[in-house]
Amino acid sequence: MTRRAQICLLVDLSNQSLAARRVRRLEVCLNLLGILSVSVGTVEVLTESTRSIAAIVTGTVSVLFLVEYLVRLWIAPEMYQAMTTSESKARLLWAISPQGVIDLLAVVPALAVASGGARLGAESASVFVLLWVFKLAARSTGVALIARVFHNERSALGAAAALFTIVLFSSATVAHWLEAEAQPQFFGSIPASLWWAVVTLTTTGYGDVVPLSLGGRVLGGLVMLSGISVMALLAGILANGFAEEIRRREFMRIWDLVARVPFFSEVGAIALADIVGQLRSLSIPAGVTVIRKGEQGESMYFLVSGAVQVHLGQTRATLKDGEFFGEMALLDRKPRTADVVTVAPCTVLVLEVADFYRLAGQQPALILAIESEAKRRRQAQPIS
Amino acid sequence: MTRRAQICLLVDLSNQSLAARRVRRLEVCLNLLGILSVSVGTVEVLTESTRSIAAIVTGTVSVLFLVEYLVRLWIAPEMYQAMTTSESKARLLWAISPQGVIDLLAVVPALAVASGGARLGAESASVFVLLWVFKLAARSTGVALIARVFHNERSALGAAAALFTIVLFSSATVAHWLEAEAQPQFFGSIPASLWWAVVTLTTTGYGDVVPLSLGGRVLGGLVMLSGISVMALLAGILANGFAEEIRRREFMRIWDLVARVPFFSEVGAIALADIVGQLRSLSIPAGVTVIRKGEQGESMYFLVSGAVQVHLGQTRATLKDGEFFGEMALLDRKPRTADVVTVAPCTVLVLEVADFYRLAGQQPALILAIESEAKRRRQAQPIS
Amino acid sequence: MTRRAQICLLVDLSNQSLAARRVRRLEVCLNLLGILSVSVGTVEVLTESTRSIAAIVTGTVSVLFLVEYLVRLWIAPEMYQAMTTSESKARLLWAISPQGVIDLLAVVPALAVASGGARLGAESASVFVLLWVFKLAARSTGVALIARVFHNERSALGAAAALFTIVLFSSATVAHWLEAEAQPQFFGSIPASLWWAVVTLTTTGYGDVVPLSLGGRVLGGLVMLSGISVMALLAGILANGFAEEIRRREFMRIWDLVARVPFFSEVGAIALADIVGQLRSLSIPAGVTVIRKGEQGESMYFLVSGAVQVHLGQTRATLKDGEFFGEMALLDRKPRTADVVTVAPCTVLVLEVADFYRLAGQQPALILAIESEAKRRRQAQPIS
Amino acid sequence: MTRRAQICLLVDLSNQSLAARRVRRLEVCLNLLGILSVSVGTVEVLTESTRSIAAIVTGTVSVLFLVEYLVRLWIAPEMYQAMTTSESKARLLWAISPQGVIDLLAVVPALAVASGGARLGAESASVFVLLWVFKLAARSTGVALIARVFHNERSALGAAAALFTIVLFSSATVAHWLEAEAQPQFFGSIPASLWWAVVTLTTTGYGDVVPLSLGGRVLGGLVMLSGISVMALLAGILANGFAEEIRRREFMRIWDLVARVPFFSEVGAIALADIVGQLRSLSIPAGVTVIRKGEQGESMYFLVSGAVQVHLGQTRATLKDGEFFGEMALLDRKPRTADVVTVAPCTVLVLEVADFYRLAGQQPALILAIESEAKRRRQAQPIS
Repeated sequence: MTRRAQICLLVDLSNQSLAARRVRRLEVCLNLLGILSVSVGTVEVLTESTRSIAAIVTGTVSVLFLVEYLVRLWIAPEMYQAMTTSESKARLLWAISPQGVIDLLAVVPALAVASGGARLGAESASVFVLLWVFKLAARSTGVALIARVFHNERSALGAAAALFTIVLFSSATVAHWLEAEAQPQFFGSIPASLWWAVVTLTTTGYGDVVPLSLGGRVLGGLVMLSGISVMALLAGILANGFAEEIRRREFMRIWDLVARVPFFSEVGAIALADIVGQLRSLSIPAGVTVIRKGEQGESMYFLVSGAVQVHLGQTRATLKDGEFFGEMALLDRKPRTADVVTVAPCTVLVLEVADFYRLAGQQPALILAIESEAKRRRQAQPIS
Repeated sequence: MTRRAQICLLVDLSNQSLAARRVRRLEVCLNLLGILSVSVGTVEVLTESTRSIAAIVTGTVSVLFLVEYLVRLWIAPEMYQAMTTSESKARLLWAISPQGVIDLLAVVPALAVASGGARLGAESASVFVLLWVFKLAARSTGVALIARVFHNERSALGAAAALFTIVLFSSATVAHWLEAEAQPQFFGSIPASLWWAVVTLTTTGYGDVVPLSLGGRVLGGLVMLSGISVMALLAGILANGFAEEIRRREFMRIWDLVARVPFFSEVGAIALADIVGQLRSLSIPAGVTVIRKGEQGESMYFLVSGAVQVHLGQTRATLKDGEFFGEMALLDRKPRTADVVTVAPCTVLVLEVADFYRLAGQQPALILAIESEAKRRRQAQPIS
Repeated sequence: MTRRAQICLLVDLSNQSLAARRVRRLEVCLNLLGILSVSVGTVEVLTESTRSIAAIVTGTVSVLFLVEYLVRLWIAPEMYQAMTTSESKARLLWAISPQGVIDLLAVVPALAVASGGARLGAESASVFVLLWVFKLAARSTGVALIARVFHNERSALGAAAALFTIVLFSSATVAHWLEAEAQPQFFGSIPASLWWAVVTLTTTGYGDVVPLSLGGRVLGGLVMLSGISVMALLAGILANGFAEEIRRREFMRIWDLVARVPFFSEVGAIALADIVGQLRSLSIPAGVTVIRKGEQGESMYFLVSGAVQVHLGQTRATLKDGEFFGEMALLDRKPRTADVVTVAPCTVLVLEVADFYRLAGQQPALILAIESEAKRRRQAQPIS
Repeated sequence: MTRRAQICLLVDLSNQSLAARRVRRLEVCLNLLGILSVSVGTVEVLTESTRSIAAIVTGTVSVLFLVEYLVRLWIAPEMYQAMTTSESKARLLWAISPQGVIDLLAVVPALAVASGGARLGAESASVFVLLWVFKLAARSTGVALIARVFHNERSALGAAAALFTIVLFSSATVAHWLEAEAQPQFFGSIPASLWWAVVTLTTTGYGDVVPLSLGGRVLGGLVMLSGISVMALLAGILANGFAEEIRRREFMRIWDLVARVPFFSEVGAIALADIVGQLRSLSIPAGVTVIRKGEQGESMYFLVSGAVQVHLGQTRATLKDGEFFGEMALLDRKPRTADVVTVAPCTVLVLEVADFYRLAGQQPALILAIESEAKRRRQAQPIS
């Protein structure tokens, strides 16, 4: 693998390896640091020295973003390998992609710093906050997930928005009728009433505009009630959308991992679909004690990648990709009999004890397979 | 099909075709424009010219609504075809239906404009906002969905409302006892205390009325807690109701579409019920690249109506209603090998890769059928 | 059935018949009217005549409650039939039951009116509001349902309450440290800070106490965030609890109704459990057109009690308890071919078209039974 | 069992016996009492005597916590039995465990009281509130459950937090642009604007800072809407996480109890998984009438531990661990025919009538077993 391909893998947003996740976390921290330093730079009461430090941090972050932009431009050909063979065309494709454009915009501060010196004007600097917030949003996989949920539930959310609009305009109009005479400065026109209506309908309640007449207060009570209903409605819609999307993603991710465990390859497709629903995946760094002797066993583990060592007294045995461990405590319901320590960064699939027993009901054959495999391994290497 | 029947189809609220949806979207925009222009017209500080523009927009929207009313009256016989054979009786039936009455009321501004000139009085104009908001609500399919959920969950919502009422009156009464002496202007009577109680119970918290005594503040804290519990309760009720209703609607809609795909007609009823739960429907305009070569395949498609073209190098093949595409990438888990472009407005059913594998577990026969059909088509037309 | 038994049935809270529900609705209205009239009576700025009317209404409601109390005491023996044979012992049992005690307390105003004349003192009157609110709460089946959900989820709710308490005291203590110097009147002691903490944690935000220091505002932001998390947590807990309880109640109610439809008695227990989950019950008064000719059929009906008439042209056929109707439109997916009108108050079980097809997948035998029964009835009485 | 082992069992947080739960409840009350007394001690306007009482209560609670600390140190060897054989090493292990450290910190007030006399300085005392709140949190099993849910849903919650941060900074920046000129004291810098943004985004709405320009108010409306969406999003995420975790815990707990009922040992594993999902567990003290003659039967009971007596007229029969009762009313749907009273603290599994019938559909063999067992027991001891 070329150096370029290695870097490409490191900065790939969908890569779940530990190294790639650390790179992403570093980027997020850099981004937040930049946003904070620009924000602090806009406070005028601070001493000159504090603002200088903020400006230097802003500049440094900008320069690092410039470096990142150039690196991404350099590795672009690897990302577009499947779509084009020309290096310059791949770079252009990346530069005009949404990510490329946002990354370019995020670099603007660096150029402004270079041209205008270390000290930035507070007004122009605050624009960078928005640019860097967008960069942050574009990188976040979570924001992508939420965007997906909003997209899937767009018809129901649209209905809630329609209802919100209808209640908003109705209440603003009625409030205008009821309160215009008493408080012309607040309810003199429908657009003016809208401010009160939105503040009340979202139950924010600043208290700067308050209905005074009996009718206005009854209306206010109804608007508040509508407000909590709309919020409840939104919660209901998003709860369903989220559950569905999370379920779908998790299923796909686990399915991909299960495919790498040889033990499951002997299990039929129907059983596999059952199993996938019960597993959780976990990334563990090297040197972590996953199972501790004497603890109550709460789960068993399937090793997707990496390696673990089983410590039983002075004897040590190493388990590799595709093997499982921790099944004894579940089969016998006794405390753990050995320590298990990771000796390399591992990805494991976790089967909790509750799901183990549920699965035992649905897929007795699988549990029998685990039992016989455990028996075989116990005889072959008596420490497991 | 007569011209009248064609127009009838276009303005039918339940028609899901692209053209009908565009007509509906246009109507909604017109409606919102009208509401905005009337609202702006009530602002007295605006210049004369701005208000004139608002009045002209209001008038134009009114006239367009009048035209719409007449068109709907003209096509009414098509809508009531099944129920009556007399044209004039059908028109009368529509005119006295809820939709007819609301549409007639929405036309009133047009007549007011005609009689009173271009400029409308701010007070009378604001009535139109309400009329047009009602017209908007009556058209929205989303509002109908929400209304259905509220209707289905009416007993649980009634219970929450009862609880709300009980807490409201209890807290107003106790607040009246505790605070009447210190703040007679706010807590002097139970109806007066109710304003504080509703503002606090919905957690709006204007801050215009605040309990000052120790007892009043303890009560206030309890009322706020009750408030967030009631909101949580509402959210819980509506979340369940929404999930149920959405599931039911989606099932019916997909079932109707599945019935039009010949491939599924060979599948038994039990398998069909399983499949319907996994599919999503999607409307795509002509000229859209649904599948792009080199991408990771995330779903396969069943073509309900319309036509798509498969581009494999220079060879092109056209798929028609009832055929499916995109199954290769799911069966082989490799990147897409061809572009697929819509050549007419299409309605497709989407089967996501996660659901494909789940289905493979539940309905192995179906996946085998897809595999053999794919194999057959690959041999017959080697580009698919 | 004796007159006493008939009245007993009418005022039974769990009776779902139309007459019993009307009696309950009347009671609730009377209760609300009483609460309103007492509330209005506490407003001192009203004219003498308005307050007199309120006092008269209050008195009348009190007297009616006295009558109700005596009636319930009279019918008590019917309610306790199974538990005791002595009439006076049954009356005593009812009088000391929670309902009996609350009903007796609700009567107190009547006695106060009788002794103190038509006009009641505002202070003493407001006590009646609470008594009548309790009476209302004790009658509401919805409140009982919510109480059951809170009881079932008590451990999770207790956890949320513990979290709330912990965040509340922590934030009040930290706010006391940060703000005591700047605002000793609001944050001078921990109990004083608690008022700010509870107002902020519930996101009520009166604005009477606002942190001014930087640290106080950062704390404020964190407390607000904790507040919306706690609210979300409550919503999550109650949503689950509600779903579970509603499902359980509905299942029991429908099961009881299904047991009265002879058609289902031929279906095995396993199929029955499937069916019960798909049905909804509906009470319809006499003279309602349930099915209208020419409409799209969205559901079929099983008649639990009552009678309906099928109008097909001039021919009329009457269906009785246990028969079903409306199945044609679902089997053939064509518009309704006849009007169906209730000729007595009916209780029906509704099977929606979506659930009909889903059931067709799960229970093909049942749908075949409906088909053959429909065929048989079509031949026997050609109008159905 | 040694005295030390008995005490160890009593104060074990996962022990569900009545005695252990009472000990835990006592600890919680003591903790809350301490928090209250310290809080009251910080109020300066109180009389000297009130504050003295508060100080004495604080001191007493501190001393009791010291006693508790020493007891736990004494029983530590029992808790670490499986992990070490040396008593002093076990004590050290406990002392440096999180619980040990928190318990030690909670004892600090006792030492401060001892050294500084009965009266504590308000400032130093308020630190104890935080220490004791942490002690409370560390003990609460509910807080552990909530922590688990937050941990499981960390990726989705992180996404919501990212969205919150992005909206927060964007809106603060835009508000800074729009309002800085009109209200420099509130919107002069981005950090200053953040206060308004967080107050508005959480819909707290103190009202101390309110946008005045048209643009600022439109932005405010959008921020409020984002706020209720974020809250809804959180509710959705937590609702799903809670449902999943509760389901998993309950399954494990019931499974452990079912394993102790001999009747279920004859049932196969698949049936068992079905049954476990339908049962609820209940702890009942001695002397409680679980079933009352003449009542409608709503559930049947499996006795996990303890003993109950069946009263049928003058005959009494005692049921022991593993037997069931209350099945008659479910099988025959008639009122209860006997009283059943607990004669020792009992743990029972409850099967509600709705779940009984559902189970009858899924597991007819089990219901047949219950029927035959009931028949056998009815013949053997005719009073059951």
